[in-house]
Amino acid sequence: MSNEIPDTMRQLRIIAPGETTWEVAPTPRPAAGEVLVKVTGISSCPHWDLHILGGEPMFPGQQLDYPYFPGKPGHEAVGIVVARGDGVTDLSVGQTVVAWRDAGTNRPGFYAQFNAFPAEYLLPVPTELPAAQLASLELAMCVEVSFQRLAMLGGVKGKRVGIAGLGPAGLVALQLARYHGAAEVVGIDRVASRRELALNVGASETVDSDEGLWAANRGNDQALDMAIDCTGVPPAVKFLLHRTKEAVALFGVVRGEIPYDGALMWGPGVTLLGYGDHNRLAAETALSAIAAAQLDLGVLISATLPLSDYVSGVEMLRTQQAIKVLFDPWA
Amino acid sequence: MSNEIPDTMRQLRIIAPGETTWEVAPTPRPAAGEVLVKVTGISSCPHWDLHILGGEPMFPGQQLDYPYFPGKPGHEAVGIVVARGDGVTDLSVGQTVVAWRDAGTNRPGFYAQFNAFPAEYLLPVPTELPAAQLASLELAMCVEVSFQRLAMLGGVKGKRVGIAGLGPAGLVALQLARYHGAAEVVGIDRVASRRELALNVGASETVDSDEGLWAANRGNDQALDMAIDCTGVPPAVKFLLHRTKEAVALFGVVRGEIPYDGALMWGPGVTLLGYGDHNRLAAETALSAIAAAQLDLGVLISATLPLSDYVSGVEMLRTQQAIKVLFDPWA
Repeated sequence: MSNEIPDTMRQLRIIAPGETTWEVAPTPRPAAGEVLVKVTGISSCPHWDLHILGGEPMFPGQQLDYPYFPGKPGHEAVGIVVARGDGVTDLSVGQTVVAWRDAGTNRPGFYAQFNAFPAEYLLPVPTELPAAQLASLELAMCVEVSFQRLAMLGGVKGKRVGIAGLGPAGLVALQLARYHGAAEVVGIDRVASRRELALNVGASETVDSDEGLWAANRGNDQALDMAIDCTGVPPAVKFLLHRTKEAVALFGVVRGEIPYDGALMWGPGVTLLGYGDHNRLAAETALSAIAAAQLDLGVLISATLPLSDYVSGVEMLRTQQAIKVLFDPWA
Repeated sequence: MSNEIPDTMRQLRIIAPGETTWEVAPTPRPAAGEVLVKVTGISSCPHWDLHILGGEPMFPGQQLDYPYFPGKPGHEAVGIVVARGDGVTDLSVGQTVVAWRDAGTNRPGFYAQFNAFPAEYLLPVPTELPAAQLASLELAMCVEVSFQRLAMLGGVKGKRVGIAGLGPAGLVALQLARYHGAAEVVGIDRVASRRELALNVGASETVDSDEGLWAANRGNDQALDMAIDCTGVPPAVKFLLHRTKEAVALFGVVRGEIPYDGALMWGPGVTLLGYGDHNRLAAETALSAIAAAQLDLGVLISATLPLSDYVSGVEMLRTQQAIKVLFDPWA
């Protein structure tokens, strides 16, 4: 792969629910504060991909117009800096970088061969790691924010921690729980294959939330000390609240209302934590966990596909054949 | 008042809903770890008094049998140590003490002329203050626990703090908010006279929660940073959650379910804090606030009555003629 900058490139564009084009477009030029990234890998973000390709807004009530922004909703990307805009001094041409946050809605995304992106939202990658290990750093940053919230209440170190929902976020969360020193990590999901995967990446035990076989309550030995909900489903959060002593942190996008029962306020009461703000420190912490080989984002990548096969990739997500798909815009 | 210990004393006993006796009983002797307190003042705890005299358990689902324990539910008491049981070294005879916590359900309470009470649940009173300033220390300790919960999230210092429900707890909470350095304290209640009282004890503004005149929401200037709910009423807690940026701490006994709407989890999300554990440090903090003349418990005492007039006193609470009543067992 050469690092020359061609005049045109290919980009993905969702033009209607279920429909995309793999169109030719001018290669962007970096504005002040931006660098031009030659994209080497983008991982799907199932929640976003399924919503936007499926015709539904990501957050309830949000407007969703087609054609969608070019390259969107791709935001978990790794690539190489090939040009710098004015004022960029902390990144150099040739450096491998990973996007640690989305840059907002009103600009192109990373489902393209090149993307001009704010330098402040990129982290240089210190080691030679494959794209599959790095592309999903933005997700890991997002999940780490929930650990920052729990840290306000003393953190997970030495504790028994529950992770509900063993999709991509949950599989990251249980690894980060270990990284932060949790003594036990309980993975909670209905799907047996996800529970099995959880055991492979560090869960000390798993629980099927569907079967009522788990006798945990706030007062017994099986109670969790802290938990993170990665489902966003009110009954799942309720399930956690009634089995957790200290705090439940919300990560999954909640649709509807979580019922906090009066009995939960005693003992001491359980704390329900909203989500925090995305931040660079969270991304750096996640990157440290990757560098220390304690966070393996590669386990999330079930398949690698050419970006032009985006619709097939999202179909694999929809049918749960894949946890995440890594897309290659050059294949 | 002499500090001699007579063989018998008078004690109040709730024998049926609405019915009490002012009975003669043997003066108790302090067991190991206890001191005998000659009670000089007990303040009503409206929630307890109204429930137990009214025939309703304090916590939903709890059993309630009559005759109730003698001297119960009196627990906010000040008095003089007149005898010590074995092993008590930190309190001396003649010392004025205040009870900082209830000693549990299966023993006599403070609605009596004497009470044998665990020394560890009493604090010596450093200054010469009237009973009206001290008797309700237990309530102040309870409220301080909610500030300890908020302290885990950075505390109220410099913040805009809301107190919902301007009963006894709310009037203590807004004074403690000031003591802990809150920049602004907003008192929220339906009752105009309570709001007026709140302004007299340090509220920077008050709001009528009923009239919908308060345009606060989580995103505007009127939003609270932190809040304490002293109502226990789910719609009131919901009202706070939708107007508070950081955290709402539960103090009032919640009956039913608080609906935590998914939209509340963003921005960063609001945290809903359950209640903590009663603790001596909270009592000491409240006592320091009293000693510093920044917490005036006397404003809660609307009347002083002989303890034998208990039923009339509780009627004053029920009809909201009194916030609290101070009872004198020797009048």
